[in-house]
Amino acid sequence: MKALVWDGHEAKVCEHPEPVATASDEAIVEVSLAGVCATDLEITRGYMDYRGVLGHEFVGRVEWGPEEWVGSRVVGEINAACGACEVCAEGNPRHCPNRSVLGIQDRDGVFAERVVLPIANLHRVPDEVLDEAAVFAEPLAAAFEILEQVDVGACDHCLVFGDGRLGLLIAQVLATTGASVHAVGRHREKLALLEARGVRTVTADDFEAAPFQADIVVEATGSADGFARAIAATRPRGTLVLKSTVADAPSVDLAPLVIHEITVVGSRCGPFGPALEALANSSVDVAPLIAERFPLSRGVEALDRARQKGVLKVLIDPKA
Amino acid sequence: MKALVWDGHEAKVCEHPEPVATASDEAIVEVSLAGVCATDLEITRGYMDYRGVLGHEFVGRVEWGPEEWVGSRVVGEINAACGACEVCAEGNPRHCPNRSVLGIQDRDGVFAERVVLPIANLHRVPDEVLDEAAVFAEPLAAAFEILEQVDVGACDHCLVFGDGRLGLLIAQVLATTGASVHAVGRHREKLALLEARGVRTVTADDFEAAPFQADIVVEATGSADGFARAIAATRPRGTLVLKSTVADAPSVDLAPLVIHEITVVGSRCGPFGPALEALANSSVDVAPLIAERFPLSRGVEALDRARQKGVLKVLIDPKA
Repeated sequence: MKALVWDGHEAKVCEHPEPVATASDEAIVEVSLAGVCATDLEITRGYMDYRGVLGHEFVGRVEWGPEEWVGSRVVGEINAACGACEVCAEGNPRHCPNRSVLGIQDRDGVFAERVVLPIANLHRVPDEVLDEAAVFAEPLAAAFEILEQVDVGACDHCLVFGDGRLGLLIAQVLATTGASVHAVGRHREKLALLEARGVRTVTADDFEAAPFQADIVVEATGSADGFARAIAATRPRGTLVLKSTVADAPSVDLAPLVIHEITVVGSRCGPFGPALEALANSSVDVAPLIAERFPLSRGVEALDRARQKGVLKVLIDPKA
Repeated sequence: MKALVWDGHEAKVCEHPEPVATASDEAIVEVSLAGVCATDLEITRGYMDYRGVLGHEFVGRVEWGPEEWVGSRVVGEINAACGACEVCAEGNPRHCPNRSVLGIQDRDGVFAERVVLPIANLHRVPDEVLDEAAVFAEPLAAAFEILEQVDVGACDHCLVFGDGRLGLLIAQVLATTGASVHAVGRHREKLALLEARGVRTVTADDFEAAPFQADIVVEATGSADGFARAIAATRPRGTLVLKSTVADAPSVDLAPLVIHEITVVGSRCGPFGPALEALANSSVDVAPLIAERFPLSRGVEALDRARQKGVLKVLIDPKA
C-alpha cells in the first residue's frame, strides 16, 4: 500500500507493507482522512527517534476485525497499552510504560491507505459528524483532557496563549464550561474565529503592553519561552496547564511558582467521548480550522505546507 | 533595642529603634527565641532586596496590645495582609499583593528584642510546647502546607529530596498521614533522625544508582538542578511539590511534565494550627534538629554558622 514514511532522514511517499493484525482484538482500518499535527513535524526534526509511517489523527472505516465492527466509521486513540502492567491495572492505559503510540512510537501511523489498531482504541463516529470534523477528534480530545484534570467553572477566568491548531480548540473547549475565556495570539484572522464563538481575544502585542492574570492559564504556543510568560499571567494559587511539548529546555525561574503557590498541570492526550459529542452538537467548530487538503501522493508537500508559520490544519486524503 | 540588621551590604548587631504599633490591631511581642532560616541567608545574598531587621521564625510573649493578649506566649504568621484587597477578600491573605513580610519585605523581623505584628498573625502556644519547639512553628507550618494542597493518603508513596532543615520536617509531616515515605539525602546522621520516626531513607548516591518513582515527590534540596531529578522521580500523573526557592534559573526540559501529565505544586507558607498541634502531641520531633544556640549579641556568628553546609537549625536568643 501507499504510505508517507519517515526513515530518520527524509519523509517520502512509498510502497509500504500492508498492516497485519497480530491479535484477535485488533482491527484493520481503511483511512478516509488524516490530519497533520505539530508532533508529526517535530518527529521529522528527530523527536522520539521514530521511524515508520507518520500520522496519528484520522477517521476511517473498519475493513477487517470483529464482525460487529466491520464497516463502522471510526476514530482512534493513539496509545496502544499492554493491558497487563500495574499502570494499566490502575486504569491509566494512556500512560502504560510498554505502550506503542500511533505514528510516534513503535507503531505505524495513519498517513497510509490502511492502519492496524486495537479495537479498544476505536470509537464509532456519530452519523451527523462529517469526516472533515471527525478527523479533529484526537486533538479535540487532547483539549478536553484539560477539563478532566482541572475543575473549570463558570466563575473562572481562563487565558489561553497560542492561536495555533491546538490553542483554537482549547479556547473553544474552555468556553463550553461557561467560564470567561481570553485567547492571546499573533494572528488577527485566527483570533477572529474565536470571537465568533464567544471567546474574547487579545493580540500578543496588546497583551504585552497591558498584561493581566487569570485563574487558569493554558500554554499552547509551542514556544520554549512561553512558560515564563504563562507563569507571570497566572494569579497566586492559580493553575497553569502546559500543553506544548517543545524540544528545547528553556531556562526557567521557578521561584514564582513557589512564592505564588502556582500549580502546573502537564496535559497530553484526552478522552474521545466528549470530543465526539462536541463535534456532534457543534459546541466546538472545527470547519474554519482546515487550511488545505492534499492527496496522500502529495504527502511530503502536505508536511511542508503544515510547517509554514500560521498555517492551520492540513489534511491528507489517502483515497484521493 | 538591640537587633541584627541587614543594611544591604553587611549584617550587624546594632541599636535599632523600638517597634511601634501603628494600629489598634497590632501587638508588640518580646522575642524569646528565634530561628535562622535559609531565606535569611538568601537575603544576605541580595534576595528580595530587603533592608532591616532579619528573621521571621520566633516564639515570644505579648508585651503590649489588646488586654486579652498581653502576657500570652505566641508564635506568628509572617505575611501581614492589607485586609482590603480582592485577594484578601477571597480568603488568601498570605498572597495579598500589598502584604509586608516579617523580616523579608517592608517589615522588621525577629532577630531583635521586640517586634510588632498584627494580632491576626498571632497564635497562642500550648503550655506543653517548649520555646525550643515552638520556634519551629513557622517552618513546620510550611511543611503542613503540603497537606493543605495535596491529598496525601495511606496508600500513597512519597519521596522527599533534601535532608536539610525543611526536608526533615516535611518527611515527618508526610509520615503523619500514614503514607509510605522515603527521604533522600546526603547526610547519614540526618537521615538517621528520620529512621527513628518511621521514615525510610536512601542516600543520594544510592538513589542515583537505583532510582525509583513515587506518587508524591517533594523537592526540598534548595538546589537548582533538583527540579529535573524530581521530575524524573515522579510517576506518570503523579504530583511534584516544589518547596525550594532558589535564586538561579535552571534550564529545564518541560516535555516530561506534559508527556507524563505530572502536576507541579508550588508550596510556601502554611497553617500554624496543625503545626502547633503536632508539636503539642509530639507527632513531629524537632529537638534533634537544633544545631546551636547563640545570644543575639553574637547574631552575625549565628548566621555564619547556619551558612555552613550540613548545619541544621541555629537559634538566636535575644534574652541571653
